[in-house]
Amino acid sequence: MSNADRILNPALRSKIMSADEAAALITPGANVGMSGFTGAGYPKAVPLALANRIDAAHARGEPFRIGVWTGASTAPELDGALAKVNGFAMRLPYQSDPNCRKQINSGEMEYTDIHLSHVAQYAWFGFLGHLDVAVVEVAAVLEDGRLLPANSIGNNKTWLDQADKVILEVNSWVNSGLDGMHDIYYGTRRPPDRRPVPINAPGDRIGDRYYTIDPSKIVAVVETDSRDRNSPFTPPDANSKLIAGHILDFLAHEVRRGRLPRNMLPLQSGVGNVANAVLGGLIEGPFEDLTAYTEVLQDGMLDLIKAGKMRFASATAVSLSPDAALAFNNDAHEMKKSVILRPQEISNHPEVIRRLGIIAMNGLIEADIYGNVNSTHIGGTAIMNGIGGSGDFARNAFLSIFMTPSTAKNGAISCIVPMVTHVDHTEHDVHVVVTEQGLADLRGLSPKQRAKVIIENCAHPDYKPGLRAYFTRALEESPGRHTPHLLDEAFRFLPEWKAQQASRAAE
Amino acid sequence: MSNADRILNPALRSKIMSADEAAALITPGANVGMSGFTGAGYPKAVPLALANRIDAAHARGEPFRIGVWTGASTAPELDGALAKVNGFAMRLPYQSDPNCRKQINSGEMEYTDIHLSHVAQYAWFGFLGHLDVAVVEVAAVLEDGRLLPANSIGNNKTWLDQADKVILEVNSWVNSGLDGMHDIYYGTRRPPDRRPVPINAPGDRIGDRYYTIDPSKIVAVVETDSRDRNSPFTPPDANSKLIAGHILDFLAHEVRRGRLPRNMLPLQSGVGNVANAVLGGLIEGPFEDLTAYTEVLQDGMLDLIKAGKMRFASATAVSLSPDAALAFNNDAHEMKKSVILRPQEISNHPEVIRRLGIIAMNGLIEADIYGNVNSTHIGGTAIMNGIGGSGDFARNAFLSIFMTPSTAKNGAISCIVPMVTHVDHTEHDVHVVVTEQGLADLRGLSPKQRAKVIIENCAHPDYKPGLRAYFTRALEESPGRHTPHLLDEAFRFLPEWKAQQASRAAE
Ligand SMILES: CC(C)(COP(=O)(O)OP(=O)(O)OC[C@H]1O[C@@H](n2cnc3c(N)ncnc32)[C@H](O)[C@@H]1OP(=O)(O)O)[C@@H](O)C(=O)NCCC(=O)NCCS
Ligand SMILES: CC(C)(COP(=O)(O)OP(=O)(O)OC[C@H]1O[C@@H](n2cnc3c(N)ncnc32)[C@H](O)[C@@H]1OP(=O)(O)O)[C@@H](O)C(=O)NCCC(=O)NCCS
Repeated sequence: MSNADRILNPALRSKIMSADEAAALITPGANVGMSGFTGAGYPKAVPLALANRIDAAHARGEPFRIGVWTGASTAPELDGALAKVNGFAMRLPYQSDPNCRKQINSGEMEYTDIHLSHVAQYAWFGFLGHLDVAVVEVAAVLEDGRLLPANSIGNNKTWLDQADKVILEVNSWVNSGLDGMHDIYYGTRRPPDRRPVPINAPGDRIGDRYYTIDPSKIVAVVETDSRDRNSPFTPPDANSKLIAGHILDFLAHEVRRGRLPRNMLPLQSGVGNVANAVLGGLIEGPFEDLTAYTEVLQDGMLDLIKAGKMRFASATAVSLSPDAALAFNNDAHEMKKSVILRPQEISNHPEVIRRLGIIAMNGLIEADIYGNVNSTHIGGTAIMNGIGGSGDFARNAFLSIFMTPSTAKNGAISCIVPMVTHVDHTEHDVHVVVTEQGLADLRGLSPKQRAKVIIENCAHPDYKPGLRAYFTRALEESPGRHTPHLLDEAFRFLPEWKAQQASRAAE
Repeated sequence: MSNADRILNPALRSKIMSADEAAALITPGANVGMSGFTGAGYPKAVPLALANRIDAAHARGEPFRIGVWTGASTAPELDGALAKVNGFAMRLPYQSDPNCRKQINSGEMEYTDIHLSHVAQYAWFGFLGHLDVAVVEVAAVLEDGRLLPANSIGNNKTWLDQADKVILEVNSWVNSGLDGMHDIYYGTRRPPDRRPVPINAPGDRIGDRYYTIDPSKIVAVVETDSRDRNSPFTPPDANSKLIAGHILDFLAHEVRRGRLPRNMLPLQSGVGNVANAVLGGLIEGPFEDLTAYTEVLQDGMLDLIKAGKMRFASATAVSLSPDAALAFNNDAHEMKKSVILRPQEISNHPEVIRRLGIIAMNGLIEADIYGNVNSTHIGGTAIMNGIGGSGDFARNAFLSIFMTPSTAKNGAISCIVPMVTHVDHTEHDVHVVVTEQGLADLRGLSPKQRAKVIIENCAHPDYKPGLRAYFTRALEESPGRHTPHLLDEAFRFLPEWKAQQASRAAE
């Protein structure tokens, strides 16, 4: 199918233009809502053209920066390109791009890290300011002007509804056979007019197949033909396999105790290699008839579906490695029998997550001995990616599992620490912590009881003595003994703390 | 109405006994689910008798401790009495009793602090272990064995369902004219069988007026005739009035900007004097036709209802000062036209809170310059009360407001600090911080932008220079500048930190 066949609405055909022409419609200071979720469905041409335009303006000494709102992380062609030209005044709600991260952590750009389920409603509520432009990738424009979504939905519905002007990218690489995979829920309202979201199982369809949009808002249509860019997963390493093993043992134990049905409850799996390895482990595991209600469909889930182990997966984006993405695109017609893509306010909706009883599995940077989790900050100050949907899932899950290797940087840093330097998931939201060393089941435990199982089950042997010593001394010296701490050395495990101490000593 | 008229079921009449006899049915090591929510509806006789029994056992050198699960905080006759005799092995999910707090913070008893909306489901899921006995206050026993609830619901439905044995206290002080005020929802299920909670407005009735229970589980019925014990509110001080004023100005501003309807959205108001003062402020404010969807009905809300300013309030407990409680009890028949009491998993349900779009107003102990909030810990180690429902509301609210005087202990401690020593509400869950100094609107802001408004608008003038200096130095010296920090002195504002430094120096 050529791109011409994809833009069937005559009025919109007349708005076809180049990416440069479209980018020229975006003015300095604008807030721009872009499509894109974990490397899928982001616009591939306009952000690059815009980055060139910004670069040229800067070269002329003219200020030119914009605010960019997306679904989640995008790709080098968007976050990377705009960060490199210092084009971001503000970025929300999630990113994972090295250049973008560098700009944020050097203090050059502002970044607002928001629960992914909150973003669309904040835009509707007027909490984020005015949305000037939307730049959204779609797979096709129907004759009546409705739009066939591409490989991610994210906040697209909201950007299309809220923006003054809309720029479409129509990507003919996306197999239009995925028509029917999407479920765009138009039933959301602002309070006090909200009603229940009527999803009772991961496969329930409650919305439309297409975006509906006022065509008069569309100011440009840009044709593209390029695939989503994703990084391959590394094959699971020994640690990931150990982590996966501990989780599978735990889930099997929960089934035996009658606390979980035989086919589990719907799975949510975070981003990253460890999460993918756990899904890989399920292929050989005893569980059948699985479902997923999650943010992103990774390779591991696709494998489960293909192996007949997973019946259905609901997500907001297809985030696959290059080979898997190709296969998925070719099989779109088949895949839509077992995959549904929804707006992220629905894929991550607290109401639905709690109702379905999700088993949530997410990565972490540090966990402390009392069960608080840091998912976002290195050394308490530098952003890694962002909280993403992990808070939506962890808080409302049936089981909230956090996983990590016990050390980072080749063993130089313990991921289990006395006190985390930043909290994304509080002690009230973490049921299980698991490392390659073992699993700590924290349900119903007091802080001191948690400290014992986290240190003994999860910490690396090299760091156990230090953690035990901290906890023992805290038990004796802490002013309060509900959550015993030595405030002046709670961060001493951190290289950043040591460096600061050293630099003060040298002063 | 005498107590005899209150126990109409013949089988249950035959189980009437003394509190001592009933307490004798509770054995060492038992997990006991008790009624009680913020000083309302707690059992008044059996816990005291049990405390005596425990004390006597300890005097004989016999071990005797129990686990106690409640709705929320109770009263001296329950938490105080059992703490004094060291009778708690474990307490959950919330307390606010001085003796209990002392036991927890000295490390003598374990305390598990849980989101109030999570407790009932954790019990159902089997996450808390086995529930041996329930001790629940009710207002009457109907002829068919159903039970008329008293002044709080909390987790009573769940305790009655889950416990092996049930001890009832029938309190004839409670006006049975409140029959019809309660709404006990029996539609909850375990996943995967859950369905939407069909509440679309604070006044929607979705359940039964009475608890249903298998009468064969009831092992004792104890008659009581005593009022709920609540502490009076202190009249609003100057700071509380200033805080209330800032919040009312902000809400009026939001109405003018079209972000809030004229009659607001349903209010949730936390415990404490400041919260009560804000409600007091609304009486003179411009808002009409208010509603509340909250945990506890305080004096301030009752006044709003009586003044015709508030149309309807939904809560799980009536937590009034002594005079207001007396008036409420006398007017029960009238009050039930505008008040509904629900189980706490419904009053605090994330699904319902998000749907209704609550304006949540809660107290805090410390907020940091980046918008993280500590509601529970003094100096990071000693528990004050617990997170209560503040997380349920803050995370899912339309507007999440946290309020505090800018200093504590007569100005000796700044409640605005560089880094909180414990996080209950993360930077992602806090829209507004307000002190008597002013209000910081954090919506959509990055961490560094938040720091500026929190320091300038909320900090006390005595602490502003120190906070500014910290932030400025952190901007220069912090390894990462997304959330700039000096890890080795982030807690230096705390007396506990200073004390630890001093004691190390003396070593
Ligand atoms: C927390 C998170 C970064 C872990 O990612 P991961 O790929 O599973 O884990 P890794 O072990 O590869 O860690 C990622 C990086 O952080 C570093 N890191 C991890 N723990 C660290 C620590 N305690 N100190 C310093 N660096 C650490 C790793 O060394 C690695 O760095 P590199 O990229 O320079 O090699 C990731 O899960 C995340 O961004 N989570 C938040 C969002 C989320 O949960 N999304 C899914 C929800 S739906
Ligand atoms: C946070 C909370 C303790 C504040 O209570 P409050 O009555 O509004 O506030 P106060 O200013 O009276 O503070 C209570 C005590 O904490 C102390 N305190 C407050 N801030 C402090 C600080 N930064 N450092 C040390 N002590 C502090 C006060 O001095 C006071 O101590 P006292 O009882 O010895 O006089 C209370 O709101 C709470 O328990 N919140 C958590 C649960 C919750 O939010 N429930 C409602 C949800 S539905």
